Amino acid sequence: MHSNVNRQFRLARRPVGRVARTDFDFVEAPVPQAGPDEIVARVLYLSVDPTNRIWMSDRDQYMPPVEIGEVMRGAGLAQVVQSNLPGVAVGALVTGLTGWQDYAVGGTGENALMPLPAGLPIPLPAFLGTLGATGLTAYFGLVDVAKPQVGETVVVSAAAGAVGTVVGQIAKILGCRAVGIAGGPEKCRLLTEELGFDAAVDYKAPDWRESLARATPDGIDVDFENVGGEIMEAVLGRMNLNGRVVLCGLISGYNDGRPMTGPWDVVLMKRLRVQGFIILDYLPRFAEGGMQLAQWMMEGRLVHRDTVVDGLEKAPEALGMLFDGANTGKLVVRVADPPIPL
Amino acid sequence: MHSNVNRQFRLARRPVGRVARTDFDFVEAPVPQAGPDEIVARVLYLSVDPTNRIWMSDRDQYMPPVEIGEVMRGAGLAQVVQSNLPGVAVGALVTGLTGWQDYAVGGTGENALMPLPAGLPIPLPAFLGTLGATGLTAYFGLVDVAKPQVGETVVVSAAAGAVGTVVGQIAKILGCRAVGIAGGPEKCRLLTEELGFDAAVDYKAPDWRESLARATPDGIDVDFENVGGEIMEAVLGRMNLNGRVVLCGLISGYNDGRPMTGPWDVVLMKRLRVQGFIILDYLPRFAEGGMQLAQWMMEGRLVHRDTVVDGLEKAPEALGMLFDGANTGKLVVRVADPPIPL
Repeated sequence: MHSNVNRQFRLARRPVGRVARTDFDFVEAPVPQAGPDEIVARVLYLSVDPTNRIWMSDRDQYMPPVEIGEVMRGAGLAQVVQSNLPGVAVGALVTGLTGWQDYAVGGTGENALMPLPAGLPIPLPAFLGTLGATGLTAYFGLVDVAKPQVGETVVVSAAAGAVGTVVGQIAKILGCRAVGIAGGPEKCRLLTEELGFDAAVDYKAPDWRESLARATPDGIDVDFENVGGEIMEAVLGRMNLNGRVVLCGLISGYNDGRPMTGPWDVVLMKRLRVQGFIILDYLPRFAEGGMQLAQWMMEGRLVHRDTVVDGLEKAPEALGMLFDGANTGKLVVRVADPPIPL
Repeated sequence: MHSNVNRQFRLARRPVGRVARTDFDFVEAPVPQAGPDEIVARVLYLSVDPTNRIWMSDRDQYMPPVEIGEVMRGAGLAQVVQSNLPGVAVGALVTGLTGWQDYAVGGTGENALMPLPAGLPIPLPAFLGTLGATGLTAYFGLVDVAKPQVGETVVVSAAAGAVGTVVGQIAKILGCRAVGIAGGPEKCRLLTEELGFDAAVDYKAPDWRESLARATPDGIDVDFENVGGEIMEAVLGRMNLNGRVVLCGLISGYNDGRPMTGPWDVVLMKRLRVQGFIILDYLPRFAEGGMQLAQWMMEGRLVHRDTVVDGLEKAPEALGMLFDGANTGKLVVRVADPPIPL
């Protein structure tokens, strides 16, 4: 329903270590009105991503940090409730940086919210996950950056997470051996039994290094790196000559203010190519990637997984869940049901 | 003169920290005889390279370590004194892994010694330096790995060394801004006043970080990395988005048995491409690179620099000099004069 308050999480202070509820002010603001060439959209789902934690810090990063007092930055899926923007109708679904709030204003510049194709038989969270920035991250990171060849071994860390689940499935579609690293037998079972990974390594098991060796008998050609730290070092130790590292995330260090370090000698000795990768750089190719992902989904070759947390007020808690590995697949916060029938 | 002993440095133990004379046995062996399809060549110059230190250790590396008791591995320039190999005449100059000894046997397999073009008006050490593996390292690392564009800023560490002096000069030939990092005002003067670098940063000066910032007003597009550690981190901190790091060497860590680490977060945030690079991989293209380098030398656009240490017995000491930065340009050991007129 169309409420008359706009609840917002505003950044109250930069978190130290783990994100706490007290790092935010949860306030009520008036519902915004659309100006010329603007829309107002009701947020239905928020995308919860490791990068939210980066934006809250003032470390060197790829976008400006969220300022203290600003509405927390976050991607979301929303439905247009008011439109002064030609071509965007009330009722349409849009995605973009809605922020952690009930209502977002979309314009034509940097605050644009992009309309989604209508009528696809796809659950809404998939537009933030497998068909959203998450799936595009997996797609371009693997296809465009790593360029794996048929028969090569692809290892992905945080494999049961939003990006990881898609990376492994695409690796299989491309004819590679897909090995996932995840925490706990339940996640590992999901990877091999439901998502088609060839092998899964439980990094919480005491013999995980041996397990990684057994899972990669021909070494590793591509590391799709989401985690960093000790796990990354073990993977790099098994890389083949001329292997490629898609450096997509280093979540093991995001709660820690210190610089994230890793081994460089192995990069030299094995002639690895390490490529830092941020999906925003692929914005001009989102349509191309999205169409391929949608086709694979329609064909049943690519399965979407998500974990839904109910209620905008739970957003800070949901962000903490990522760092505990409490989710499988895409983690989203359900903020509202569509106020206008889809 | 043709001696009847073959002095050899054999590895006695793996060095701990800095290389010591006592890490080797200096022995006299009989001069070898050429078997079928073999040559015997008198070593004239040995190439002293940071990689010698890697080969002495048993850390993970790109070739097998030198075994204890084996003749120390090293590249050299030699003159053929006996030949059973069709097409290679007595008196010809050859290069390859001669080892640290007076006489080397060359065959047709992995122990091949490659004949050099005759009659070039080029001093012999240049065949190990600017026209040898050193110059080829600079050439392929910059041209093929980094692919700098006209107007981009290239920074090279250990800039007054064998590879660095050539990297900066090629960067200028390619139309880039060339900035060298070296130790001491004398080396910095060499770079800017004699080798045409646009700027030089003395890392021994207390204000070297400010000096690096002043020398790279438009940031850094290419880091040709030879050193690692603190200097590398400072360079990475000034890299532009989508910069490229040619990871050619990490000499700051070679005396230290520990893994060499570096920052990974900056690679991610700035979407850097870090490419480990070992010149051996370019063996099939040595002729192409060598011809280009020779042409630039003949045209006077590329200047060869070297530091010559006299006497095979000084080889261990010469290797230590590299780590003190005691050389400028290519460091070679002069073992003998050509026994047969060139």
